Amino acid sequence: MSSDFGKILKTTIFGQSHGKAVGVVMDGLPAGLSIDREALYAFMARRAPGRNPWSTARRETDRPVFLSGLREGLTTGDPLCAIIENQDTRSGDYDLLADTPRPGHADYAAQIKWKGQADLRGGGHFSGRLTAPLCVAGGIARQILARYGIEVGAHLASVGEIEDEAFPLNPNPDLFRAVAAKTFPVLDDAAGDRMKALIELVAREGDSIGGTVECVAIGLPAGIGSPMFGGIENRLAQALFGIPAVKGVEFGSGFAGSARRGSRNNDPFVLEAGEIRTSSNHAGGILGGISSGMPIVLRVALKPTPSIAQPQQSVSLSRQEPVELSITGRHDPCVALRAVPVVEAVTAIVLLDLLLEEGVPLLTAESAVTP
Amino acid sequence: MSSDFGKILKTTIFGQSHGKAVGVVMDGLPAGLSIDREALYAFMARRAPGRNPWSTARRETDRPVFLSGLREGLTTGDPLCAIIENQDTRSGDYDLLADTPRPGHADYAAQIKWKGQADLRGGGHFSGRLTAPLCVAGGIARQILARYGIEVGAHLASVGEIEDEAFPLNPNPDLFRAVAAKTFPVLDDAAGDRMKALIELVAREGDSIGGTVECVAIGLPAGIGSPMFGGIENRLAQALFGIPAVKGVEFGSGFAGSARRGSRNNDPFVLEAGEIRTSSNHAGGILGGISSGMPIVLRVALKPTPSIAQPQQSVSLSRQEPVELSITGRHDPCVALRAVPVVEAVTAIVLLDLLLEEGVPLLTAESAVTP
Amino acid sequence: MSSDFGKILKTTIFGQSHGKAVGVVMDGLPAGLSIDREALYAFMARRAPGRNPWSTARRETDRPVFLSGLREGLTTGDPLCAIIENQDTRSGDYDLLADTPRPGHADYAAQIKWKGQADLRGGGHFSGRLTAPLCVAGGIARQILARYGIEVGAHLASVGEIEDEAFPLNPNPDLFRAVAAKTFPVLDDAAGDRMKALIELVAREGDSIGGTVECVAIGLPAGIGSPMFGGIENRLAQALFGIPAVKGVEFGSGFAGSARRGSRNNDPFVLEAGEIRTSSNHAGGILGGISSGMPIVLRVALKPTPSIAQPQQSVSLSRQEPVELSITGRHDPCVALRAVPVVEAVTAIVLLDLLLEEGVPLLTAESAVTP
Amino acid sequence: MSSDFGKILKTTIFGQSHGKAVGVVMDGLPAGLSIDREALYAFMARRAPGRNPWSTARRETDRPVFLSGLREGLTTGDPLCAIIENQDTRSGDYDLLADTPRPGHADYAAQIKWKGQADLRGGGHFSGRLTAPLCVAGGIARQILARYGIEVGAHLASVGEIEDEAFPLNPNPDLFRAVAAKTFPVLDDAAGDRMKALIELVAREGDSIGGTVECVAIGLPAGIGSPMFGGIENRLAQALFGIPAVKGVEFGSGFAGSARRGSRNNDPFVLEAGEIRTSSNHAGGILGGISSGMPIVLRVALKPTPSIAQPQQSVSLSRQEPVELSITGRHDPCVALRAVPVVEAVTAIVLLDLLLEEGVPLLTAESAVTP
Repeated sequence: MSSDFGKILKTTIFGQSHGKAVGVVMDGLPAGLSIDREALYAFMARRAPGRNPWSTARRETDRPVFLSGLREGLTTGDPLCAIIENQDTRSGDYDLLADTPRPGHADYAAQIKWKGQADLRGGGHFSGRLTAPLCVAGGIARQILARYGIEVGAHLASVGEIEDEAFPLNPNPDLFRAVAAKTFPVLDDAAGDRMKALIELVAREGDSIGGTVECVAIGLPAGIGSPMFGGIENRLAQALFGIPAVKGVEFGSGFAGSARRGSRNNDPFVLEAGEIRTSSNHAGGILGGISSGMPIVLRVALKPTPSIAQPQQSVSLSRQEPVELSITGRHDPCVALRAVPVVEAVTAIVLLDLLLEEGVPLLTAESAVTP
Repeated sequence: MSSDFGKILKTTIFGQSHGKAVGVVMDGLPAGLSIDREALYAFMARRAPGRNPWSTARRETDRPVFLSGLREGLTTGDPLCAIIENQDTRSGDYDLLADTPRPGHADYAAQIKWKGQADLRGGGHFSGRLTAPLCVAGGIARQILARYGIEVGAHLASVGEIEDEAFPLNPNPDLFRAVAAKTFPVLDDAAGDRMKALIELVAREGDSIGGTVECVAIGLPAGIGSPMFGGIENRLAQALFGIPAVKGVEFGSGFAGSARRGSRNNDPFVLEAGEIRTSSNHAGGILGGISSGMPIVLRVALKPTPSIAQPQQSVSLSRQEPVELSITGRHDPCVALRAVPVVEAVTAIVLLDLLLEEGVPLLTAESAVTP
Repeated sequence: MSSDFGKILKTTIFGQSHGKAVGVVMDGLPAGLSIDREALYAFMARRAPGRNPWSTARRETDRPVFLSGLREGLTTGDPLCAIIENQDTRSGDYDLLADTPRPGHADYAAQIKWKGQADLRGGGHFSGRLTAPLCVAGGIARQILARYGIEVGAHLASVGEIEDEAFPLNPNPDLFRAVAAKTFPVLDDAAGDRMKALIELVAREGDSIGGTVECVAIGLPAGIGSPMFGGIENRLAQALFGIPAVKGVEFGSGFAGSARRGSRNNDPFVLEAGEIRTSSNHAGGILGGISSGMPIVLRVALKPTPSIAQPQQSVSLSRQEPVELSITGRHDPCVALRAVPVVEAVTAIVLLDLLLEEGVPLLTAESAVTP
Repeated sequence: MSSDFGKILKTTIFGQSHGKAVGVVMDGLPAGLSIDREALYAFMARRAPGRNPWSTARRETDRPVFLSGLREGLTTGDPLCAIIENQDTRSGDYDLLADTPRPGHADYAAQIKWKGQADLRGGGHFSGRLTAPLCVAGGIARQILARYGIEVGAHLASVGEIEDEAFPLNPNPDLFRAVAAKTFPVLDDAAGDRMKALIELVAREGDSIGGTVECVAIGLPAGIGSPMFGGIENRLAQALFGIPAVKGVEFGSGFAGSARRGSRNNDPFVLEAGEIRTSSNHAGGILGGISSGMPIVLRVALKPTPSIAQPQQSVSLSRQEPVELSITGRHDPCVALRAVPVVEAVTAIVLLDLLLEEGVPLLTAESAVTP
């Protein structure tokens, strides 16, 4: 098991979907930084279940309780622990499934690993529920990043084969705020309407659909990161694959770039207002694992929700015979939708860790951007 | 900087392209395992430069010298250090470029990070040259994996928009050996011929081309790995992004799966000869970060070689003015080609580390597969 | 900050003395192990404050609440989080001290590190209060160690210059239980009575006194550990210095051995009932960082409680002038007394981590010792 | 196995006593720092064998070869690898001992751990020979520390029961240089003469003797380090126990302080020339794991050399019967003597890692102290 990540800032996630609480410990935060709780709650609300017709009906207050590391709204420099109680658990939904692994779920792999002792209720420690404490940590990281002049934004880049437009080359932070304020976080609302219709369609058919999320960070200075195994891509990818259902991560032109010629994929260096920039950003702001000063651009692929109502083929572990399985319970038909703020959260945490490792100083209160 | 990866088996890479030597330290290998040097040399030869018309003319013997950790062909359990001397270095090729960052290279980012002190000769520590010691480590890991009954194979899955066929659902290890024995490692030789023609074409035009590599590991038992941040995907991705030019990593159906419905992307569980398998493998053998017992399947996207002969736009750092840049020197027109064994190497090292962490026992000599 | 330790089993401590709660996350526990809560409470009671005349009057229930990782008394394999609410906090006691660092305390160093933002109430994250969650973790580790046939015991080896006798060469686990059952955990009760008298004396004089704790682990098989930096001594020492007030750690004959000749300090190998043992144990069961199969023996030195009622010399940070300081509040006159189970706890956690790293299998239920 | 330590600066040691070479990789050094090779050689000469009558007759040039990370005398920011070839190996000396573990050595523990495959020639990876690359790393760290205004000194504090005087409260760096220049590194030469006589005596008697080393670092600013498990003491202890034969580590008044009262052991804060200092330093410059601005003071206990010529009792592993063992070969009668610079080396490496973690900026060239 390894439910933590980070080098200077270590973030540890604990909890199971249907246990008493889920939570997070962040060890390595600087001291004396104010955390705006309302802004944090607003960020968390973006992933909360039950807020629109396209996500699970499970309802939770999701108010984090801070057990340590905060005093009168300021970080103390000690490990910060926040917990969220699980209020709306229905273990019964899952009792019949113990013997029959759900296709696309970790049930079978976990049963083997833990020799039949895994807590699979609601996905246990594998559950999307664990992204709630991840968003507590990410919401805090976002607020601190703002004091370095760094902002992170994301949108639902595709659902099925329907694609949103991409972020522009040098996005304005207002654009991040605008898309974050939408119930359905896309840039092109017409594409968004088609995505919604598709999600509703697959839901009606007892099915689910995959999607991708694009995330961009602006303001990261050049020179952050490392070649080889501790670079920005390595550390972001290691953490992003911790989000349930993520099966692919790419930076800049990514897989599309691997079909191109160098003369088209290289980003020419240019001078812009006395600063060295590139006139395209196929590198996604990362060269040799190190930031180039251009926006960090990444995309993650999320598989379709494995829990579907349609009958599926499985096997009874005890009887060693085929069984047909129908999954009831509450499930998002498209996990990519609620993953949008989670991708932002993880990206923010990793970038903050990198900044702390490099010893980059905070901006003064006057020059800092607003959270 | 962080040029190491791994938890129980720590692999550290050192060296610069045009320094005295490159090398690797593997700390955490079990003791008493025989290493077949000829098999190791054969594996390393697969990435060596200058062995075919589609790769750089730089020639090197690439014979690793073992400084520690081996005694009479057996691992001692101590840190194993192997070095490869750099014999054919031509620093002069790079002297004129110090002031003018090459598009697509880490030059600019590294100059900022190291405040002008980076060793950029031949790419320095960013160079593909560093994949030679990675292949020493990977070649050793492959031999040890064989004693767990695990084999790793890879092929060039695409060059530009030309695609090879994919590995079958349950590949036979003979197929791995057959593709490894080819000068041009593809499954479909007709596709390979078109790839070669494309590489030759872009090379003649002073350009380069990207590609992808598919890698599969068979024999990994179910139950290896972890949910969240220490799972198979997290650790493989963290390491694979350490291979120069990698910009994307996906597992199983990956990005393609994110365009699909759950009813099509889920892998039904079936009984095959008394074993629980899945009848498809869109999960790439990994569910919740844990192995399912099916083959591990991953693909990496490699960008086109950034060093191209065509003139490119850059900026003089000292004069702060635009300059046109033409890169001479020896360069692979398609780095994906020589990356095939490197992807295998990194995959093998990470899987070995995971097995050691889980305490999986070695097979007895009789039951072990041949390396 | 780094409030965690361990490699396979990562233990993270959070909380401040006068915050909402203190707690621990243990990530890496095996699944399916039963935890006996009553035995755990009994272990924790050994360090609890207010249970005898020689320790602080602060009273706390110290009942851990398990938020995750346990289900129906069994470990689930997920991160286990336990918290203990802080019930009896009196921040007021510390308000006057903010400007005047207490001699022997971390106040000054922490104020510099956190630029005036440290939470110093009651010692904040430096407090002995943090040893409560450490004992939750240690109590759990002890129960699991018992299933490997390993038991850990400790006693108060000295207070001031009064020494208890040492554990015998091959202690019986009953001896551990007998000393653990005592209110004053010494082997020689006559020495214990002299220690109590000394503690009472220094307390009356508004002073405090240092002490040492000896800890022994029996049942650890030979061959566990590593040379150089990951050995038993390295890892135990790294963790033991995390207990507040610890200023020295030694193994086997330790500092005394450094005054001896080799002919006297070496432990001769002998055969005992067909097993290879040593006829003395000056090595403390550790040779080259690896267990020899003999008991692990260590001693830690704890400084006298820095909080004393006698007037002391300090400096006002704001006025930059000398001030005389008298510390009121509740304090143990001899922290070594309550440190006895804490040393056991830390030792147990580290040894469990080492066993998990080596992949040592659990004993079967029948052969396991009782917790 | 874990032959590395450090967080931002990772130092990995490899090699066996009688293998081809020993070496070190330092990953995380800043770029652009000049390394004075002559000063490094001079530092290494302090631990080299065969330079005085009180140490082993084994002779080695011990000139490190830098394979990477240095270019024209400047660090490049890439991993620095230095190797030292083993020139004077005599494996034959050890062949007869394979079956008969030497008392006080790791032979038996290592044979169990590595199931008979350990390379025990000359102590293998356990050998004091491994302290040569550690001194390369430490010599480099010392030179860089000097650019932070930090200097490290050490002396032989005791041999058997003969004690040197201690460093003064605020030692002058000239004192460090003076003691480092001596063949026999003590402060009180009269005590040194008695130590030499004792070493000669035990050597004549085929015996050995233990000793202690005191090490002090001056110039470390207040506020470096952490409470709990990542503090200065934790990290120094973890690394110092990696030096062969170290069995105890204490800071400040250490074990002696545990026999004292708080009123005597606490260090009063005072103002000295406008700076906050303490009028004694029983804390060894560390409070709550964090530096107080006073000198860091530590002592390590080294056991007597286990290799002695006197006959000792052991057991034949193959025949399972007692045997009498006499060890021939070349051995230091008092390993503490040559450990003096090694303790400095390890201390310097750990302090440098802590400074890099905190992001402390280098002094400008003008203000820096000389290496």
